[in-house]
Amino acid sequence: VNFADRMDAALERVRTPALVGIDPHLDLLPPPFARARDARAPRAERAAALEAFCSELVDLVAGRVAAVKPQSAFFEVLGADGVRAWERVVAHARGAGLLVIGDVKRSDIASTAAAYATAFLEGVAGADEAERRSLCDAITVSPYLGSDTLVPFVEACERSGGGLFVLVRTSNEKSDEFQGHGAPRLCELVAGAVAELAPRLLGRGGSSSLGAVVGATHPEELARMRALLPRSILLLPGYGAQGASAKDVRPAFTDGARPWRGALVNSSRGIAFAWRETKHAGRAWQDATRSALAEMIGELESALAR
Amino acid sequence: VNFADRMDAALERVRTPALVGIDPHLDLLPPPFARARDARAPRAERAAALEAFCSELVDLVAGRVAAVKPQSAFFEVLGADGVRAWERVVAHARGAGLLVIGDVKRSDIASTAAAYATAFLEGVAGADEAERRSLCDAITVSPYLGSDTLVPFVEACERSGGGLFVLVRTSNEKSDEFQGHGAPRLCELVAGAVAELAPRLLGRGGSSSLGAVVGATHPEELARMRALLPRSILLLPGYGAQGASAKDVRPAFTDGARPWRGALVNSSRGIAFAWRETKHAGRAWQDATRSALAEMIGELESALAR
Repeated sequence: VNFADRMDAALERVRTPALVGIDPHLDLLPPPFARARDARAPRAERAAALEAFCSELVDLVAGRVAAVKPQSAFFEVLGADGVRAWERVVAHARGAGLLVIGDVKRSDIASTAAAYATAFLEGVAGADEAERRSLCDAITVSPYLGSDTLVPFVEACERSGGGLFVLVRTSNEKSDEFQGHGAPRLCELVAGAVAELAPRLLGRGGSSSLGAVVGATHPEELARMRALLPRSILLLPGYGAQGASAKDVRPAFTDGARPWRGALVNSSRGIAFAWRETKHAGRAWQDATRSALAEMIGELESALAR
Repeated sequence: VNFADRMDAALERVRTPALVGIDPHLDLLPPPFARARDARAPRAERAAALEAFCSELVDLVAGRVAAVKPQSAFFEVLGADGVRAWERVVAHARGAGLLVIGDVKRSDIASTAAAYATAFLEGVAGADEAERRSLCDAITVSPYLGSDTLVPFVEACERSGGGLFVLVRTSNEKSDEFQGHGAPRLCELVAGAVAELAPRLLGRGGSSSLGAVVGATHPEELARMRALLPRSILLLPGYGAQGASAKDVRPAFTDGARPWRGALVNSSRGIAFAWRETKHAGRAWQDATRSALAEMIGELESALAR
């Protein structure tokens, strides 16, 4: 089934556009998982602690949000052992009924792009059951090389029912440096290329599985990108720790009757590492995480109600 | 020691700018390694065959070229098992005296970019000997997010002596779509940002470890990028299978007395899969690879002699 349709169905169930980012920076893990940053521990044991944290985080948020977005860099720091943990966390999340958006920001030309799509979305010929469970429902991809390099990813999604989120306007401080270059601005040019390819991954419900990443830290941009990308699900990083608020994301949502549809609002540290914030001092990390997610869901509900 | 200095020293030894790309597409491996694409074989066994091919390829080219450039996508298709093979191939190549440029095209914001740099260049705190050997000497990175996202990679290189090759102008057909956008063109803007950061990674010999990827398929561009990036080592993909010739790369080289210095000319399929070409029909893949590399080195030597 088409990713956008699966996402729309999942959003109908949870009725919130909140997306939980899994960015397990080793230095920030709660004390029970300190083994992950123990420089004297074997790498495989460190990866096991990393996996244990992420799996528990998945269990805490399953049923409350439609999807999680693990960030591959924080697994790759532990090399092949970390990638093994990534595979298990992805499989665990899918087993818990969550959609998984792999934040891998891959890109390359032709057959190499196809290999990345195989790695994360399709699986190699003969992949066994466990390997298939470790594939993502969707991934993030980078457009710098040109829209021809997005096509192999789109083709893989046509075959597999996977989804893509193309980096269009990112949430970092100097994102305007290149993305705002020229007239039209580069990000608008990229959005146009995404809009042109989006019909190839259109679901039955009218949403496309070819989505776009637009930083919630640029509220003025959201309406513009929403207009340029009418069919695409927008993935909005930048909420919470990076400074964007629930009100900032309003322009990304256009269906007043279903204010959880059309965009995903990501928070990573604000949820997973809520226990580190002063206001949650002394609480178990799980309680802090549950509270922070409930608060985010509540804030979005209030801000998006019309 | 600074990557650019290590590269300059290696180039003085081999006296050729030829760079061997290791793009082990499973479907193209020689018959002895067919296990890698056997859909009924366990993934770990497929990865072992992939590793065996790459290691033999490394042995064939060691001593003849300064560096190899493995492409991570073709390892990631086999998941954690493939990444294990990647680590062993990188360690094997470094053990054979080759510099390793990991073609990973990673990018992300802030602490996530730092995590990628840790994963590929620095190693996590407490990494053991085997883990350290599997780190790359340099990696490729993508600039779309902005030059602020290159800084964590540069900082990691300042600490570790690693190198970077920033995608500036790629070798694919539609690379001009975004990279040629605006005035100045986006690729020139990116080159300017790279040139501004390059002094931070300057070696004693005057070359910077902050290099740039410029497709050899755009000969008219090489002189321009050489001028914009006077200190950077240029990595030129596109030679051979992608259509660029030895003459095309001439503008990237400016030191007439040392026509192997300042740029690396990459060939991947043309070397590793030379056995598939009609003119090598019936020969062992190793012989075809040796011949193809000797031919490339000869062509470059003739074309670059002044």
